[in-house]
Amino acid sequence: MQGTAQTPSQPAPAYPPTDRTVPTRSPDRASYDRELVHAILDEGYVCHLGFVRDGAPVVLPTLYGRVGERLYVHGSTGSRPLRMTGAADPGLPVCLTVTHVDALVLARSAFHHSINYRSVVVHGTAYEVTDPQERRTALDALVDHVVPGRSRDSRPADKKELAATAVIRLDLNEVSAKLRTGGVNDEPEDMALPHWAGLVPLRKGFDAPVADPGLDSGTALPGYLAAL
Amino acid sequence: MQGTAQTPSQPAPAYPPTDRTVPTRSPDRASYDRELVHAILDEGYVCHLGFVRDGAPVVLPTLYGRVGERLYVHGSTGSRPLRMTGAADPGLPVCLTVTHVDALVLARSAFHHSINYRSVVVHGTAYEVTDPQERRTALDALVDHVVPGRSRDSRPADKKELAATAVIRLDLNEVSAKLRTGGVNDEPEDMALPHWAGLVPLRKGFDAPVADPGLDSGTALPGYLAAL
Repeated sequence: MQGTAQTPSQPAPAYPPTDRTVPTRSPDRASYDRELVHAILDEGYVCHLGFVRDGAPVVLPTLYGRVGERLYVHGSTGSRPLRMTGAADPGLPVCLTVTHVDALVLARSAFHHSINYRSVVVHGTAYEVTDPQERRTALDALVDHVVPGRSRDSRPADKKELAATAVIRLDLNEVSAKLRTGGVNDEPEDMALPHWAGLVPLRKGFDAPVADPGLDSGTALPGYLAAL
Repeated sequence: MQGTAQTPSQPAPAYPPTDRTVPTRSPDRASYDRELVHAILDEGYVCHLGFVRDGAPVVLPTLYGRVGERLYVHGSTGSRPLRMTGAADPGLPVCLTVTHVDALVLARSAFHHSINYRSVVVHGTAYEVTDPQERRTALDALVDHVVPGRSRDSRPADKKELAATAVIRLDLNEVSAKLRTGGVNDEPEDMALPHWAGLVPLRKGFDAPVADPGLDSGTALPGYLAAL
């Protein structure tokens, strides 16, 4: 960013690489582009949240939401990772990873079989969110991450539900994306082998929504769902 | 398993629960059923492998394969987690997680929004595989995990490729599945709210295979791909 002045409203277009975010292998597949990172995060539903408990790693799938340069994860106040980030604690070192599998890559050689994927890895310290307004914002973001616009079309959490919900925050500072795109990378001497080679794209998107049996028959499918 | 004799060819139908595999929340969503665990593992392509480096958690997406009660992960001999499991080392504590997202669950209340998912979490110690025959078996399993039957229809790894590839093994001992299935769980007093509620299933499967541009035009799509 040499020579370019950054204002708070215009964050640098890339996250600064660190020792942890520069891979030792295939560095050409790594990216620090902020827009790319946001796009990968916004397309996912479940992240894999890693933390250390009793010296051993734990990786759990969980929903997440993004508000600008902050990710939010929530859960029951009784769940283990959320208990470990209480306000009295100095925060919990975490690694949060989101991955999309786009295609199977079938090469002529077993060695060059691969997957086209896009992933984001976030390193940092997670803190419990205690500010009521930030908690509301985070919970809306978690619902809107599942379906954009949905938080305005559902009953907000009441006092009891809020009391049962812990929210943790992870800032996007030490972040990288990693992706494999494109076709098959076979060795030149393998090109004449008789094996089929190519990509098998994974199907994306949604099947038709299935209304809850208890739904009033007059309830129309909302526009934000039809648009999915 | 009281009163039932188990032979090596008939493993117990369930993994024994441990402190780490019994969740503190929603224990009704946990399962230790061996067949269910295998089915969830076999349906996935990418796992999220967690380990501890310099005291902090790291979670990386990677391919995996299963042979009976063993999972295999491979990578370049130069990659970080694989360097950490060298034969001279006492193994690497890991947590390997596989998750499928099946549907978005839209409840009338924000609080009951959820995801239908199926996940498997494996805790254990990963060891480098050095036996040449087990390495071959593992690499075949990794290719066949992407597309069953594919290892027999591709060129096996040569000496140079084998030398560049590290394989690590994780036994399925401390394992649990966790899943949410079914419909919306709204509070009785919310049932009359005007919000649409129901499931939005994620589309599964594959789009049509895309042949490599360098493929001989006479190469037919193999049966194992047409069957996908």
